[in-house]
Amino acid sequence: MIRVGIVGYGNVGMGVEKAVLSAGDMELKGVFTRRDKGKLKLRNELVPVYSFDEAVKMTGEIDVMVLCGGTSTDLKDQGPRFAALFNIVDSYDTHAKIPEYLASVDAAAKKTTAIISAGWDPGLFSILRVLSSASLPDGEAYTFWGRGVSQGHSQAIRQVEGVKYGIQYSVPVDKAVDAIRSGARPKLTTREKHHRECYVVAEPGADKSAIEHSIKTMPDYFADYDTSVTFIDEDEFKANHSKMPHGGNVIYSGSTGENKHLIEFSLKLESNPEFTGSIMAAYARAAYRMAGEGMFGAKTVLDIPMTYLSAIPREILIKEML
Amino acid sequence: MIRVGIVGYGNVGMGVEKAVLSAGDMELKGVFTRRDKGKLKLRNELVPVYSFDEAVKMTGEIDVMVLCGGTSTDLKDQGPRFAALFNIVDSYDTHAKIPEYLASVDAAAKKTTAIISAGWDPGLFSILRVLSSASLPDGEAYTFWGRGVSQGHSQAIRQVEGVKYGIQYSVPVDKAVDAIRSGARPKLTTREKHHRECYVVAEPGADKSAIEHSIKTMPDYFADYDTSVTFIDEDEFKANHSKMPHGGNVIYSGSTGENKHLIEFSLKLESNPEFTGSIMAAYARAAYRMAGEGMFGAKTVLDIPMTYLSAIPREILIKEML
Repeated sequence: MIRVGIVGYGNVGMGVEKAVLSAGDMELKGVFTRRDKGKLKLRNELVPVYSFDEAVKMTGEIDVMVLCGGTSTDLKDQGPRFAALFNIVDSYDTHAKIPEYLASVDAAAKKTTAIISAGWDPGLFSILRVLSSASLPDGEAYTFWGRGVSQGHSQAIRQVEGVKYGIQYSVPVDKAVDAIRSGARPKLTTREKHHRECYVVAEPGADKSAIEHSIKTMPDYFADYDTSVTFIDEDEFKANHSKMPHGGNVIYSGSTGENKHLIEFSLKLESNPEFTGSIMAAYARAAYRMAGEGMFGAKTVLDIPMTYLSAIPREILIKEML
Repeated sequence: MIRVGIVGYGNVGMGVEKAVLSAGDMELKGVFTRRDKGKLKLRNELVPVYSFDEAVKMTGEIDVMVLCGGTSTDLKDQGPRFAALFNIVDSYDTHAKIPEYLASVDAAAKKTTAIISAGWDPGLFSILRVLSSASLPDGEAYTFWGRGVSQGHSQAIRQVEGVKYGIQYSVPVDKAVDAIRSGARPKLTTREKHHRECYVVAEPGADKSAIEHSIKTMPDYFADYDTSVTFIDEDEFKANHSKMPHGGNVIYSGSTGENKHLIEFSLKLESNPEFTGSIMAAYARAAYRMAGEGMFGAKTVLDIPMTYLSAIPREILIKEML
């Protein structure tokens, strides 16, 4: 049994918990939190909850720590810190800073295997981008996210004065997707790739037009996009906007001389954090196996063969899935 | 430069040739044929043509041999024979016999790296089946081929008395695809998954209803399918049915408890052999690199990380595609 620890018990942590509990080859040894230990209610009450400080004494009891903290708030410090002591998996997702983060984790992972950025983007989408471009070097990869809830953008809406509840869906622009699927390789601006749909419950008496203006003109988050703001009441919000669906596509348009080829990978997820957690559990298995073979240091999904991810033995994978 | 040899100069061999000639890190050292050497016209006339017998003396001149012979006719013997002397890549595609073939190649590849079954199915589709099931263990993978030309079925049509030209397209059944995309996990019979569309040019005076009957009742190839036979004239055949398009989908329907998730990978290829050749060139690069690291023996696409496939260095892949 692979002994797994979960660091951080938010939505993704709960997704990892669900995946580990249903994996036949894994045992959940504990959840590590900075919050009040007594207040965490786990899915399986027999699994112990520990404070962060207790982790350092448990290096002999846990094979892989799955880090489920936020990229911007937690991982920068937690990644190297835990990688010095344990094999780790995380889903670090600030694309621009991955090389720097990889280097800092690699420096710490002298005797451990640390798999970073193992979600669906970065993660499965990264595998597809590289597999496509290697298979068909003359081509262009396009990535679309959605339709799905962006936590960061939803959070940004909720900071606006007068907003009681708010949620944001990223939505690929059909026209762009259709153009690529038709074999074109267009240059697309940010605005041409995604719409942003916002659903807002306003505080009683709030100025709705001011809220709408604040959202639509918000730099980085909304100003560069066609953004819609729809005001709804609290009942509708709770009924229709309490889940975290997501998904997206990597579409690769390429050619071999005069012949065109289209490669497409798409995800439609009813729960983004549960799917992410499920992927991280697979990479926890890989981290355990790679560490067993002495493959130490920081790794990415691009460094890991498929056979390391599955609970099914290689011989059976080859016989039944190859 | 990776020095590549091509064994067998049919459609796939020509696809590999095109891919190798356009790869910046590869050099095509020769094409090996059993046919009359003088009759082969290569894309690049400076590339030498050799007979099979000459290969044995060229172990120091070629880094990877790409075997482009047919699975049923050639590879069973050629795979082990060439793997004993060279790093190889092939696209062995009889799914049921892969374990046996893998073992025979592995026994020969003592000091070489031999990557078998590296096309798109087996190949890219295999990667997606394993990646999906590892990421989401509670689920079911469905594979559809087409719309596209099946060489084997086209060949079978051409054996029927009275057929001058014939081609067969495998076509996924929309109803089945739609059911899976809707989140169902149906049990599907052979007939429920694919149609077979045949286009036939009859010899003058041939009995068309006898031809149609012979095709539709042919065991293994057509009897288990809903098969359509359309008679066309020679001009239409040459105008509309002389290409080799193909494609298909791996659709994985899975869940994390009550939440459903759909993973889909699809290919739309204007030239099946050119795309297959392009994939094999990428795996030739991987074979070269793995051999350089002493990773000998028979390998499959499930054993190989993405970083080995691309001409782009790992650091750049991580920076730009992860």
